[in-house]
Amino acid sequence: MVSRLNEEIRKKEAPIVVGLDPKPEFIPEGIRKKAYDEFGETAEGVAEAFCLFNEAIIDAVCDLVPAVKPQIAMYEQFGIPGLAAFDRTVRYAKEKGLIVVGDAKRGDIGSTSASYAEAHLGGTRIGDKTVRAFDEDFVTVNPYLGSDGVKPFIEVAKRDNKGIFVLVKTSNPSSGELQDLIARDSEGKERPVYEIVGSLVDEWGSGAMDGDYSDVGAVVGATYPEQGAALRRIMKHAVILVPGYGAQGGKGSDLKPFFNEDGLGALVNSSRGIIAAWREERYSKYGAEAFADASRAAVIAMREDLRQAYE
Amino acid sequence: MVSRLNEEIRKKEAPIVVGLDPKPEFIPEGIRKKAYDEFGETAEGVAEAFCLFNEAIIDAVCDLVPAVKPQIAMYEQFGIPGLAAFDRTVRYAKEKGLIVVGDAKRGDIGSTSASYAEAHLGGTRIGDKTVRAFDEDFVTVNPYLGSDGVKPFIEVAKRDNKGIFVLVKTSNPSSGELQDLIARDSEGKERPVYEIVGSLVDEWGSGAMDGDYSDVGAVVGATYPEQGAALRRIMKHAVILVPGYGAQGGKGSDLKPFFNEDGLGALVNSSRGIIAAWREERYSKYGAEAFADASRAAVIAMREDLRQAYE
Repeated sequence: MVSRLNEEIRKKEAPIVVGLDPKPEFIPEGIRKKAYDEFGETAEGVAEAFCLFNEAIIDAVCDLVPAVKPQIAMYEQFGIPGLAAFDRTVRYAKEKGLIVVGDAKRGDIGSTSASYAEAHLGGTRIGDKTVRAFDEDFVTVNPYLGSDGVKPFIEVAKRDNKGIFVLVKTSNPSSGELQDLIARDSEGKERPVYEIVGSLVDEWGSGAMDGDYSDVGAVVGATYPEQGAALRRIMKHAVILVPGYGAQGGKGSDLKPFFNEDGLGALVNSSRGIIAAWREERYSKYGAEAFADASRAAVIAMREDLRQAYE
Repeated sequence: MVSRLNEEIRKKEAPIVVGLDPKPEFIPEGIRKKAYDEFGETAEGVAEAFCLFNEAIIDAVCDLVPAVKPQIAMYEQFGIPGLAAFDRTVRYAKEKGLIVVGDAKRGDIGSTSASYAEAHLGGTRIGDKTVRAFDEDFVTVNPYLGSDGVKPFIEVAKRDNKGIFVLVKTSNPSSGELQDLIARDSEGKERPVYEIVGSLVDEWGSGAMDGDYSDVGAVVGATYPEQGAALRRIMKHAVILVPGYGAQGGKGSDLKPFFNEDGLGALVNSSRGIIAAWREERYSKYGAEAFADASRAAVIAMREDLRQAYE
């Protein structure tokens, strides 16, 4: 799967993944009204509004970016109708040729991780059919349980040509509480926990190569470029999924450390900065009705900004 | 919420939580046939079988145990119908007076954790109504992202009288890869990562006391009793959710270290050992049709075995 991702990044000159993390307040009144008129001011109504909103944004950006990343928490919050909207969004994005990163941050003991892996990347035999539940292309995975919590995802990824991104150094302010602890690694060397996890990602990924990169990628926040540089060296073959650009503070020129010399190796996420662009001063000329055009303009601006990072 | 849990544990003399982690192969042929006849051999059929199976077990054990713990991965694997079965199981268990621990191991950056917290413990305003998505009583939380990934769950728990269990030392074989790393804590003292997380749990929990215990509990595997003893001392007010009893290897007498001197402080999980008891040699007399009676017998045996741990 990662070779397809890299091909699309090169073709579109855009190492960009659009975060489809809708909130009711990001959605223009007109769309909400349309959805609520049909389904009421209910979870079903919100779910319909999410889908209409996402689909308009997907239509507006699908020729510009390789991938979208719906954050499942935003949908799970609205229960079964919300998760059905997640499912519908994943399917719609794939129909439009986009690669879908399911941001689910799942992880558990081995046999349970295997169920999550089949839920998000694979499929489950029922009688003589295989039922694919959410069928994203990549899923994000939490490493706190160690190898036996991560490997079931890798096995399914290898079987079904999918991929994963393992949380290594997250973008949030308190990520350091655990991730920056200085610990002794298996060789007795003192290193931060995120570097030790980075070495595990490199090791796990070596068995899942697809071209020059591995289907086992990593999450490293744009907010931590120094740590990103160290991790780039440790995880040579991992694509780094980089959240925290824009809304969380990062800028294109800060992101050089996340890329390899081949101009690849990073996939930068922006969520609110793209999907809620219409609410920003700089895109106000589009107005609420043309919100998807504002998103398109924000993607074009981001694409230009990111050239400083990898060219 | 934890005071209600402790009250039920005392009343029923059973620090037991039954893991409702169904797999098609755990479900007797008769139940599967009934569900497939109605919904086909589909995800909907499996979901219906899960519900019929869970409901029979809930009926058979609800007077004996305080709580059940559905593992959401088992349901997520079957997509929207599976998650609807999770929802229905949570509701059914609550109707029968049981406390429900949602084993979801969620965790993300702050604003996203807030969405997960509302999804699993709280509710979301839509217009003038609050929609509760899954509405468990407790949810399990992954601490890898640090305080700002955990605190939104605690805020919602405090607001809505719910609780959480934070993963500290998990029961799986490779849990030590990260959790046992020796690191320097904030005072420069060398300690394993799980102890540092244990201290965070103690700190987080001090602001969420409910009687003698905190609504912030911890997960520590039965398979690691020594670590359990150390963590019991560090997290005096946390109820420890203990997976790994039975199927994963633990025994009642091994679990002493997880309890406090008041006979409380631990909630021991058994999943397969109870729900699939009918498939075991020792309960074979019940046969497939009386599978729920086999589960009841397994709970009674577990209750007796656990007395060695806390009496």
